[in-house]
Amino acid sequence: MITTKSRLYEIIFEADTKTGKIFDVSLLIVILLSILLVMLESVPSIEAEYHYLLKISEWVITGIFSLEYIMRIWIVKKPKAYIFSFYGIIDLLSVLPTYLALIVTGTHGFMVIRALRLLRVFRILKLNRYTKEGTIIIRALRNSRIKISVFLFAVVTLVIIIGTIMYLIEGGENGFTSIPRGIYWAVVTLTTVGYGDISPSTSLGQFFASIVMIMGYAIIAVPTGIVTAELSKNSSKPQSTQVCPNCMADEHSEDSIYCNKCGKKLN
Amino acid sequence: MITTKSRLYEIIFEADTKTGKIFDVSLLIVILLSILLVMLESVPSIEAEYHYLLKISEWVITGIFSLEYIMRIWIVKKPKAYIFSFYGIIDLLSVLPTYLALIVTGTHGFMVIRALRLLRVFRILKLNRYTKEGTIIIRALRNSRIKISVFLFAVVTLVIIIGTIMYLIEGGENGFTSIPRGIYWAVVTLTTVGYGDISPSTSLGQFFASIVMIMGYAIIAVPTGIVTAELSKNSSKPQSTQVCPNCMADEHSEDSIYCNKCGKKLN
Amino acid sequence: MITTKSRLYEIIFEADTKTGKIFDVSLLIVILLSILLVMLESVPSIEAEYHYLLKISEWVITGIFSLEYIMRIWIVKKPKAYIFSFYGIIDLLSVLPTYLALIVTGTHGFMVIRALRLLRVFRILKLNRYTKEGTIIIRALRNSRIKISVFLFAVVTLVIIIGTIMYLIEGGENGFTSIPRGIYWAVVTLTTVGYGDISPSTSLGQFFASIVMIMGYAIIAVPTGIVTAELSKNSSKPQSTQVCPNCMADEHSEDSIYCNKCGKKLN
Amino acid sequence: MITTKSRLYEIIFEADTKTGKIFDVSLLIVILLSILLVMLESVPSIEAEYHYLLKISEWVITGIFSLEYIMRIWIVKKPKAYIFSFYGIIDLLSVLPTYLALIVTGTHGFMVIRALRLLRVFRILKLNRYTKEGTIIIRALRNSRIKISVFLFAVVTLVIIIGTIMYLIEGGENGFTSIPRGIYWAVVTLTTVGYGDISPSTSLGQFFASIVMIMGYAIIAVPTGIVTAELSKNSSKPQSTQVCPNCMADEHSEDSIYCNKCGKKLN
Repeated sequence: MITTKSRLYEIIFEADTKTGKIFDVSLLIVILLSILLVMLESVPSIEAEYHYLLKISEWVITGIFSLEYIMRIWIVKKPKAYIFSFYGIIDLLSVLPTYLALIVTGTHGFMVIRALRLLRVFRILKLNRYTKEGTIIIRALRNSRIKISVFLFAVVTLVIIIGTIMYLIEGGENGFTSIPRGIYWAVVTLTTVGYGDISPSTSLGQFFASIVMIMGYAIIAVPTGIVTAELSKNSSKPQSTQVCPNCMADEHSEDSIYCNKCGKKLN
Repeated sequence: MITTKSRLYEIIFEADTKTGKIFDVSLLIVILLSILLVMLESVPSIEAEYHYLLKISEWVITGIFSLEYIMRIWIVKKPKAYIFSFYGIIDLLSVLPTYLALIVTGTHGFMVIRALRLLRVFRILKLNRYTKEGTIIIRALRNSRIKISVFLFAVVTLVIIIGTIMYLIEGGENGFTSIPRGIYWAVVTLTTVGYGDISPSTSLGQFFASIVMIMGYAIIAVPTGIVTAELSKNSSKPQSTQVCPNCMADEHSEDSIYCNKCGKKLN
Repeated sequence: MITTKSRLYEIIFEADTKTGKIFDVSLLIVILLSILLVMLESVPSIEAEYHYLLKISEWVITGIFSLEYIMRIWIVKKPKAYIFSFYGIIDLLSVLPTYLALIVTGTHGFMVIRALRLLRVFRILKLNRYTKEGTIIIRALRNSRIKISVFLFAVVTLVIIIGTIMYLIEGGENGFTSIPRGIYWAVVTLTTVGYGDISPSTSLGQFFASIVMIMGYAIIAVPTGIVTAELSKNSSKPQSTQVCPNCMADEHSEDSIYCNKCGKKLN
Repeated sequence: MITTKSRLYEIIFEADTKTGKIFDVSLLIVILLSILLVMLESVPSIEAEYHYLLKISEWVITGIFSLEYIMRIWIVKKPKAYIFSFYGIIDLLSVLPTYLALIVTGTHGFMVIRALRLLRVFRILKLNRYTKEGTIIIRALRNSRIKISVFLFAVVTLVIIIGTIMYLIEGGENGFTSIPRGIYWAVVTLTTVGYGDISPSTSLGQFFASIVMIMGYAIIAVPTGIVTAELSKNSSKPQSTQVCPNCMADEHSEDSIYCNKCGKKLN
């Protein structure tokens, strides 16, 4: 027997039915609108002119999200598991700040509340269930996480050394007023961001900076190489999804006829 | 019987004959000249000095393009299909603005007209028919379009979070006057563009910015990895699917005539 | 018989036992603290307020490092080999500057001493023994070192030519006051750092700069390509060199026990 | 019989003997010194102080280069072939400007002469004969030259469109005074150089710029992908250097036993 509850479950938690898809898309639009709203509210000129319109929209959206949150808790089989799951917390954080704003006072308090509301953006990630491409990228990044950590570690060491040398060369002037600031400059330069808020003025400093930048060429190649090698591996060797009916071993290459663990025929 | 029409068809629409090639190259030169003309016209000092020369050149080029457009409609078998095709619309947009300029008045109106004329640049893409390399790149990009979309999606989410945090840290000062502006800064930083029109001034802001930049290292590696993996797959030397009828060896290179394992002729 | 010396050896030089791991981690924390300390000391406002606290902490840390250094010399079998090894020198350099500071006077002298203390950061590299990923990256970089050198060589040549041309175009003005400064600009531009402290002002200069930047696109691809190709080679799943004794099939994965073509056992 | 001429030939043109290597290295040092000299001469403060020293050094170096050039012509078997070869012209251009400086007058004339002397830097490229790595990189770039051209072509088209849109958005203000300047901005942004000499000030402009930058992410991946794919191909498939003794075909795969063109056995 199909109860209202199980029908609602299908609509809210699954995306196979037509109503389920409509629900998903309209929720996405509301999320995007709510993010836009928070952004606009932070622009002083817009806030001044459309104060009441923004306030009302905010409460309408909070209402929709609250209703959705309550419904999810009511429908789901294990409410506790949902509430403390990543998306459960995000869903709660989407509505809480607006209610909190009734209590909190002070300019900075309001700013923090506003920012918290932007955590709604994580709700977009729910869309991930439509794509298996996302999981490929994430798996590639996860597989290369140790290599990337080692690399970032080396970069941090390098940046400390470079920043210190530059601090000595420029002699605490031209913006290089302390070692941390020298390190900030080294990060800005080595990552090729190059704001130009701090830049060397002495000839020796510019010479050293040139060496750092050219060195940065070779360095930027490393993470790219790591991720590319990982993604190439994933995308080239299509592994069979077959599991050996005899010994349950998986990870057979796609052209295997016999199981490479126990020698029985795969079917 | 070869009519003038079919001869003209060969010249204008095909590039196999000598006259066809001459037509293509001279048209390319006219297109490049016309683009240069529009650009120069937008430079105030040049416009002031060579006003009449630029005006005359513009009408000469519009004349040539109009003639070409009319001829294409006259020659082609299915005029309607051509007119509403991508290149048909581009061809029309190449001449229309100049005629429109006779009617339109006002400074901003003129600027828009001038810009519209620059759409002629798309005509250059017709040259694509000479290259199969372009299609390889486009195919690689198309194959990885879902992965890239997922990635850009994640970047947008990240940029909103980073921009908001920075807005909170810098407290609405030093250029970080609103959340959208914080997001603009996050985009400028994460893509390693780094204008420096907005840059953090507080110590905490510079520390956070350093983390974002180093994180950007790992992030920029992802799209490169995606496209590279795709291009590697495409460009890996196409192996012949032939199997030697004598020794059953496979993996012959595509231009092999004899089996490289037993020396028998492949068929 | 296990002496105190051999037990200490296990703790200090090895990381297999529980005490050894605790020692490593606590040493890492001290190293990170000592680096943070040196950085903070270089910030004038912090130095002014917490002068005595920083001084005391510095001596405490120097004490710990001195003790560790002496213990290492005492414990190790070949003290000479340790003293003149890379890490031995780094360990000495971690403590020497603080003692030197008692003798050295003058502002610049103090700055150099402070910077020398930062060489402690290299001690972090000792952690490398935990990761085999680091060695993969280093091996890939070492394997491609000649290619990267050739590339950097070409970049230096290019940068000299571009810098000189720009110096001629801008005529020694707008910051391009000499050829070395033109070369500095070329490096900043070609590596896509782009500070903006020197940027072309003439139309011809901006046109030439545009060409250089677009050219930089193709150039930045080269080191990435080199490192990626090297890392892909290393990371491509190591295939077993085994050939099936029954059907002569090869290309088994390294952990195969049975042939995936005929099902016979591999030996 | 070994004449002086043939002995000199070995020293100057070959690098196998010990004297040949010494000659090469000392020539390299002189070349590097001569480049440094030209650079220093362009720095006003150094030129003012060391005017005579620089002048004398310049004539000494020109003397050495002149002697080398004359000797090369005298020794080589086909002087004409050498004189009109790439390196022959570079060798001549290394000495000519200094002699020309005796005739030429005027500040800008001197600047051009100085710049011409810097063409000596190309002499460094002679060192290439020591490395086969350089040829691998160059071959990879040459193989991908059509793909890169197509890509650069697309970038130029894109940059024209983006620059024009930005010119319209910012309305000819904030540095976007003409379409070419808008295009210059588009190049600076899309290549992630980001000087910041021109940057959008309107909200719409910053929004559009953000899109362009994020788009630039996907774009920068393309040339990297092209070159990497090419380098991976070159570095993975080791081709046999064998030439078929029967039909002279080459490009056999390394494990070939029989020629894949005529079927004869390779030895």
